[in-house]
Amino acid sequence: MNFINFDKTSAYGELQKAAAAFGNFDFSGNLTASRVEKCRCDMAGGLVYSWAAKAADEKILALLQNLSNEQELLAKYKALLDGEIMNTGEKRKVLHHLSRGELGKPVIENGKNIGEFYRSELERFSAFARKVRSGEIQGSAGKPFSAVAQIGIGGSDLGPRALYLALENWAEAEHKQTLKAHFISNVDPDDAAAVCAALPLDETLFILVSKSGTTQETLANELFVKDKLAKAGLDSAKHMIAVTSETSPLARNPAYLDSFYIDDFIGGRYSSSSAVGGCVLSLAFGPEVFAGFLAGAADADKLALEQDITKNAALLDALLGVWERNFLGYPYTAVLPYSQALSRFPAHLQQLDMESNGKRVNRTGQPVDYSTGPVVFGEPGTNGQHSFYQLLHQGTDIVPIQFIGFIESQRRDDVTVDNSDSQTKLKANLAAQITAFAKGQKNENPNKDFPGGRPSSLIYGKRLDPRALGSLLAHFENKVMFQGFIWNINSFDQEGVQQAKPRTPP
Amino acid sequence: MNFINFDKTSAYGELQKAAAAFGNFDFSGNLTASRVEKCRCDMAGGLVYSWAAKAADEKILALLQNLSNEQELLAKYKALLDGEIMNTGEKRKVLHHLSRGELGKPVIENGKNIGEFYRSELERFSAFARKVRSGEIQGSAGKPFSAVAQIGIGGSDLGPRALYLALENWAEAEHKQTLKAHFISNVDPDDAAAVCAALPLDETLFILVSKSGTTQETLANELFVKDKLAKAGLDSAKHMIAVTSETSPLARNPAYLDSFYIDDFIGGRYSSSSAVGGCVLSLAFGPEVFAGFLAGAADADKLALEQDITKNAALLDALLGVWERNFLGYPYTAVLPYSQALSRFPAHLQQLDMESNGKRVNRTGQPVDYSTGPVVFGEPGTNGQHSFYQLLHQGTDIVPIQFIGFIESQRRDDVTVDNSDSQTKLKANLAAQITAFAKGQKNENPNKDFPGGRPSSLIYGKRLDPRALGSLLAHFENKVMFQGFIWNINSFDQEGVQQAKPRTPP
Repeated sequence: MNFINFDKTSAYGELQKAAAAFGNFDFSGNLTASRVEKCRCDMAGGLVYSWAAKAADEKILALLQNLSNEQELLAKYKALLDGEIMNTGEKRKVLHHLSRGELGKPVIENGKNIGEFYRSELERFSAFARKVRSGEIQGSAGKPFSAVAQIGIGGSDLGPRALYLALENWAEAEHKQTLKAHFISNVDPDDAAAVCAALPLDETLFILVSKSGTTQETLANELFVKDKLAKAGLDSAKHMIAVTSETSPLARNPAYLDSFYIDDFIGGRYSSSSAVGGCVLSLAFGPEVFAGFLAGAADADKLALEQDITKNAALLDALLGVWERNFLGYPYTAVLPYSQALSRFPAHLQQLDMESNGKRVNRTGQPVDYSTGPVVFGEPGTNGQHSFYQLLHQGTDIVPIQFIGFIESQRRDDVTVDNSDSQTKLKANLAAQITAFAKGQKNENPNKDFPGGRPSSLIYGKRLDPRALGSLLAHFENKVMFQGFIWNINSFDQEGVQQAKPRTPP
Repeated sequence: MNFINFDKTSAYGELQKAAAAFGNFDFSGNLTASRVEKCRCDMAGGLVYSWAAKAADEKILALLQNLSNEQELLAKYKALLDGEIMNTGEKRKVLHHLSRGELGKPVIENGKNIGEFYRSELERFSAFARKVRSGEIQGSAGKPFSAVAQIGIGGSDLGPRALYLALENWAEAEHKQTLKAHFISNVDPDDAAAVCAALPLDETLFILVSKSGTTQETLANELFVKDKLAKAGLDSAKHMIAVTSETSPLARNPAYLDSFYIDDFIGGRYSSSSAVGGCVLSLAFGPEVFAGFLAGAADADKLALEQDITKNAALLDALLGVWERNFLGYPYTAVLPYSQALSRFPAHLQQLDMESNGKRVNRTGQPVDYSTGPVVFGEPGTNGQHSFYQLLHQGTDIVPIQFIGFIESQRRDDVTVDNSDSQTKLKANLAAQITAFAKGQKNENPNKDFPGGRPSSLIYGKRLDPRALGSLLAHFENKVMFQGFIWNINSFDQEGVQQAKPRTPP
C-alpha cells in the first residue's frame, strides 16, 4: 500500500481541474425521477443511501472512483480489518469492526485472539444483563434493578446515549425495555447531583466506563455516586459494574459487582459496539436487541468492502464529502434526522467526525496543505425547520446536508389531522425540504426568493429498529475512516483532546 | 439614520486594510495579566465579558468603534426601542425589549399602549401561575397540577426549554420548583407519544404556544394530546392553556382554561421574555423567579445603550464577531458553556443567530456582497473536551469560541477528590482550555503540537441564577441585533423557515 498525501495524488489534480470547470450544478435540470432512481444504493439493515441531490455528475463520480482506487481505500480498510497498525500515532491496531463481526484474518496480539476476546466479553455481559433483567441479580437492599446509569464521558457517553435514545421508543413499543437508562458525564457537579436526585438509588445499577481507569471526570463522578449510595445505606459494590481495560486500576476490583473488558484497539468514539455501548443497551433492552444492532453494523461493514463506489454507500458518502470539502470549499456539514429518536445522534456524529478527522498533520506527523474534517452539527427535523434552516436556505454560505428519515414511526401511536397523520406530515416536510434546498423557490420578492443549489443526501428506511441503527452507526464510522485514508491522516488518535488538560492538579 | 450596506462604509475599507496588514496575532505575547485585567467589561446580572483572548488590538478596537459610530448602531437600537418599523420585510415594530422594560418612548399602535399590554399579560399569567402552584386551580380529576408540558416548536420550544433547563437545578436547590416542565415540539409522533406516556395526565397542564394559531406541528400535537386526555377521561378544557396572538383562532376560545397574549412585534426566537417563556417558567418556578430573569434582561438592555464599545459587552461582542467573520474569514462560532445547566442554550443561540442573520439580502431586499451570520454550534464543557475539541485545537481551520462559566455550582452538592471539588476542576479545565487555544502547546512531536492562535471570549459570573440568565439571554439577543445593523440586514423576519413547507397538503 502507498500512503501519500491527498494533494500528491493525480486524482487531486484532476478533481481540481474538474471543479474549476464545474460551474453551477443544474439541480433543477438534474433532479429528475430517473436520476433519483439511479442515484441510490442499498445499505445494510434495509436502509437506502440517495445522492440524487448532490452536486456531482457522471464525470465527477468517475474521478472519485479513480481517487478511491489511487488512494487504495479498500486495501487500507482490509489491512485495518486484518489487524495492521493503522493508528500510527499511538502504534495500535484499529479493531472496532471486530466487536461485531470478523471480516479479515484472525487478529492475534501477544498470543491472544482478539476476536475471541471481544466475543467472550459480549457473552459475559449478555449473561450478566439477563440476570439483572430477570431479577436474579439485585441491589444491596434486596430490590430488583429498575434503572441503569452510565458514568462516562466523550465516547463512553455520546454514542451510548444517542443509541439508547434512538431505541427507547422502539423498545417500549415492542415490549423490550426493562430498565431505564440515565447518563452522568460532565465534571460539573450539577450533572451527577441532578441525575442522582431523580433516581431510585436502591434500584439503580451504575456502569462506570473508563478504558484507562484514570479519566478525571469519570472518577470524580464515581466518588460522587458512591458517596450518595453510602449515605442511602447502600453497598456500592453491589450497585456498580466497571467497563474498562484489563490493565486499568478498575479491573478485577472487588469494589465492583462485575467488570467487562475492552482494549486499546477500540477508540472511545468507536466503542458503541463494544462493552462500552453493549452493557448499557443490553441491560436496558436485552441482549437480543443489542445483537440485532451488532448484526446491522456487521452487515454494513461487509458492504463497505465493495470496490464500485456506486454500490458502497459509506465509500461514496466519504468521496462526495471530500468533493464538497476540498473542491467546492464547504467547511461544514449539517446532519438533520427527521426522527425525534435520533435527537442526540448528530452530537455523536459530531464527535465521531470532528475528533477523528480534525487533524492538521498526516499519519506520519507532517503538516498537510489541504483541508481535513469539516465542522459537523445538527438537530432533528422538523424542529430545525423552525430554527437554523433560515441560514441553510438563505444564508450567504452553502452548508451541505445529510438528511435521515423513516417511513414508519417507532411507537406507532399517531393522530390524523387534515387527512394525514403526523408521520406522513414528517415525511412530506422532509421531501419538500430536499427539493427546496436543491431547486430553490423563485419569488419576485428577493426576500422570499430561495436561490437553491444547496446539496443534500438522504438515508432512509422503513423504521428505525436495532438493525437499521447498527447499519447507520457503521455507515458513518466507515465514511469517516475512508475520508481519513483519502486525507492520509490518522483518524484513530486524539491528541487534541488529551493534551489540553489543566497542567497542575487544580 | 443612514441604512447603508456594510461594504459601502468607510470603516469596512479600513478594516479590510487593517486585516491585510494584521498578520498573526501574538497571543502568547498579548495574553498577559494586564491585558486580562483591561479587556473586561461588566455585564448585567453580575456577569463579566472578557475579550482578552480575542485577536484584536487597540487599533482594531478603534476601527470597530468607528464602524459602530458610522453604522449608527446605537441610534438604530434606540429607534427600535421607540417603536420604529425595524422589521422591514414584514413591516413591523420589534418590541421584545418592551416585554422586560421600557427604555424608549411609549409605543402606541392603533391607540393601544403596547408596553402596558405586555405588562398586563405578565400580571395575568403571574396570577394564574400562583393559583396553579397553590392548588387553587386543579385538573378535571380534582388533582393539583404537578407537571406542565409546553406544546410549541422553534422559538416556542428552544428558548423556553433552554431557560427551563438552565434554572431547574438552581430552583430545586433554592426550593422554588413546584412543577416539572416537559416539551413537545416535533411533528414526529414519537415525540408527543413518548412525552405523554411518561406524564401523569391527570396532573398535567398543557401550554399550547402558537402566535398565529396555525403552526402545523403544534396543532397536530395539540390534537394528539387532546386525544390522550379524552381517552384518560379528562376534560382537555381544564388541562390546557393557550399562548397566542389576540387575532388567532386559539384566542378567547372555550377549549382552553385560559389564554395569554403576545403580538406580531415579538418574533418567536425573541419571545422567551414574553408569555411564551413566561407562562412555563412562572408555572414551574414561580412568578418571582421569572421576574428576576426579566430584571436581568432589562438591565442588560440598558447597558447595551452605551456608546463606548469597551463598556458595552453586547456591542463589542457583535463587532468582534464581525471582525472574525468578515475580515479574518471564520465561517462559524462555537458556544461552549462550562455549565451542564446550559446544555440546550447553544441550540437556542443557534436558532437566535442563524435564523436572525442567515440572510443574503439587505433590509430592502438587495443581495449583499459580503458574508452575514455564521454557523453556530456547541455543547457543554467539559463534555466537548472529550469530543469535537480535537478539531478546534488541531483542525485545519480556525473556529472562534464563546466560553461561558460560573464560579459556583447551582445545586451546591459536590465531592472532593484529589484535594479539589468537581466545580473547581470544571473551572480549572475552562481556564486551561482558553490558554491552550490561544497560546498553543509546543511539542517536538508534531502530532502532539498545538499551534494555538484560536481566539475565544469568556462570559463568567458567580452562579447561574435568574438574573444572570436574563442578562445572558439579552446579551446574545442584542449582539445579534447589532450585527444585523452592521450588515444592514433585517434580523427580524424568517422567510427561510416560512416558505419551504410542503406545497400540497401532505
